[in-house]
Amino acid sequence: MDRSHKPFLAVLAGERRDPPPVWLMRQAGRYLPEYRAVRARVRDFLELCYTPELAVEVTLQPIRRFGFDAAILFSDILVVPHALGAEVRFAEGEGPRLDPIADAADLARLDLARLHERLEPVYETLRRLASALPEEVALIGFAGAPWTLAAYLVEGRGSKEWLAPRTLARREPRLFASLVDLLTEAVVEFLSAQVRAGAQALQLFDSWAGVLPEAELERWCLAPAKRIVAALRARHPEVPVILFPRGVGAHLARFARETGAAGLSLDTTVPIAWAAEAVRAAHPLALQGNLDPVALLGPEQALLEEARRIRDAAALRPHIFNLGHGVLPPTPPERVAALVRYLKSAGG
Amino acid sequence: MDRSHKPFLAVLAGERRDPPPVWLMRQAGRYLPEYRAVRARVRDFLELCYTPELAVEVTLQPIRRFGFDAAILFSDILVVPHALGAEVRFAEGEGPRLDPIADAADLARLDLARLHERLEPVYETLRRLASALPEEVALIGFAGAPWTLAAYLVEGRGSKEWLAPRTLARREPRLFASLVDLLTEAVVEFLSAQVRAGAQALQLFDSWAGVLPEAELERWCLAPAKRIVAALRARHPEVPVILFPRGVGAHLARFARETGAAGLSLDTTVPIAWAAEAVRAAHPLALQGNLDPVALLGPEQALLEEARRIRDAAALRPHIFNLGHGVLPPTPPERVAALVRYLKSAGG
Repeated sequence: MDRSHKPFLAVLAGERRDPPPVWLMRQAGRYLPEYRAVRARVRDFLELCYTPELAVEVTLQPIRRFGFDAAILFSDILVVPHALGAEVRFAEGEGPRLDPIADAADLARLDLARLHERLEPVYETLRRLASALPEEVALIGFAGAPWTLAAYLVEGRGSKEWLAPRTLARREPRLFASLVDLLTEAVVEFLSAQVRAGAQALQLFDSWAGVLPEAELERWCLAPAKRIVAALRARHPEVPVILFPRGVGAHLARFARETGAAGLSLDTTVPIAWAAEAVRAAHPLALQGNLDPVALLGPEQALLEEARRIRDAAALRPHIFNLGHGVLPPTPPERVAALVRYLKSAGG
Repeated sequence: MDRSHKPFLAVLAGERRDPPPVWLMRQAGRYLPEYRAVRARVRDFLELCYTPELAVEVTLQPIRRFGFDAAILFSDILVVPHALGAEVRFAEGEGPRLDPIADAADLARLDLARLHERLEPVYETLRRLASALPEEVALIGFAGAPWTLAAYLVEGRGSKEWLAPRTLARREPRLFASLVDLLTEAVVEFLSAQVRAGAQALQLFDSWAGVLPEAELERWCLAPAKRIVAALRARHPEVPVILFPRGVGAHLARFARETGAAGLSLDTTVPIAWAAEAVRAAHPLALQGNLDPVALLGPEQALLEEARRIRDAAALRPHIFNLGHGVLPPTPPERVAALVRYLKSAGG
């Protein structure tokens, strides 16, 4: 693979590019009318994720419209629990619902046996994307990290504080470790299969890492991240892995130093200059981020000034411009267009 | 005031004490059967906050049962919006509901005119507590910080992401600044009156500071905290202020360095040894925290080991032992008793 044609991959290999490559988390989604038109054709959200024709189409929509440097597979982190046998339902406007795991009998109902079979439509989506994307656009595969997936499986739904998984992890640490181990293995298998299907980079979303104290973070987030990065490097040394441990604040540098990841995605709250200093020893690690998605809901002038500040603060590191969290549904598409136009024109 | 009799105040004055003084956020609350008995006597939660006889009783319950080194006024951060004229309702099991502020007309309905009149029952509670508490127990007053109060006022309820206030702050920064200014003034007046009524230390809870990017955090959290600490120091130089900017991660040191606060309360996610290093320049600032409240739901042995780790990691700073967030309703009171017993016996 010739990286020089794909700025996104060049930066993950340690190059600095000006202007920085750009893509946005949830760049395919409800804020786009063409996405809503496709979404209306299926009854439920998982059906969209599992129908290659439609998943390819919504993945490509923002590439056509905005000219991003990377396309990320359209899917959801909960396809892994689903492929392990968990019930996963997406009720309109309510977020996901799962049958909560509370004990060993619940855990025993999950297994790896049919993982690839159930995820085959995702792999087919990636194969089609790999041949459909323009030469200069990279294809990103992804998965939820084990802690975040375990949190949904134990809580049974989204949460602010995630007390159910945090309590189970303390009361039944061996049971919880079995769950995290199973998910770690599933994530490695899933991401490795995504590479075989055409993914050129991988991102691991630990969206709820930020609720854990240090010792728990080490055990349930950092250790699995190390295992996942190591397993993928062994199998696919050419494929960079980006970690997104959202909300981990002062612990961020450990994810850089201790895992061997090629990139670190920064959430909205992280001062990018601080992060650049904190990961100095982990050269040439790329930083990704971290514009506040709410900035896309405000006036254009303030948006572009904030984008400039982030680009400037990251200028001495390999940097991929992104948000610190996903695009919000009320985002005006013209704001995204203005942001990309600004970034592409402001370099040099 | 002779601080040597009150270990909590001695530590806030810069002394190290071994064992460290201890109190817990939400030490008065639903996990105590004697609290639930008092709660059952009133129809709604605000009535409990505004009935001095009952508020005094529930404040004293954990002091009698566990022998904490500080009692914190039993109240709620939303009494300030309520005293400014906002509708505030606590529906059972649902959390607070407020009529959301969306524009200048909504904001104009809030005013300071009747603040002290409406909060008089809170001051009466403090006066009674000041004479009822044992000599060695300090009395803490508190308020919600302006950003967190504004977030509830604009969102109208609790939230994970607080998109309504974050969006309003970007779309209508002048309106939002007026709201934060009004709340800053109200908080100063409220805390100052608490001191006149007998509070010997003050804690400012910025529970939702952790969702903001750096520039917004500076404007809506750090700047108001500076103003509040400066105004209170001018009026009551002997009364220490503790800041609790929850979830601010890498920004924590700025709250220490730039505000002149006497203490910094650490949330669960902050490695206390990292925080001690980060605030080194702000000697003799006291650190407070930061045991995970979920540890109180797990086995006693693991709880005491974690308490020991925190005590040891903070041993070189003035340290007040506390949780990183409030006591959870399912907490067994005997775990709290075991924790306090352990801390009191393990020093020396």
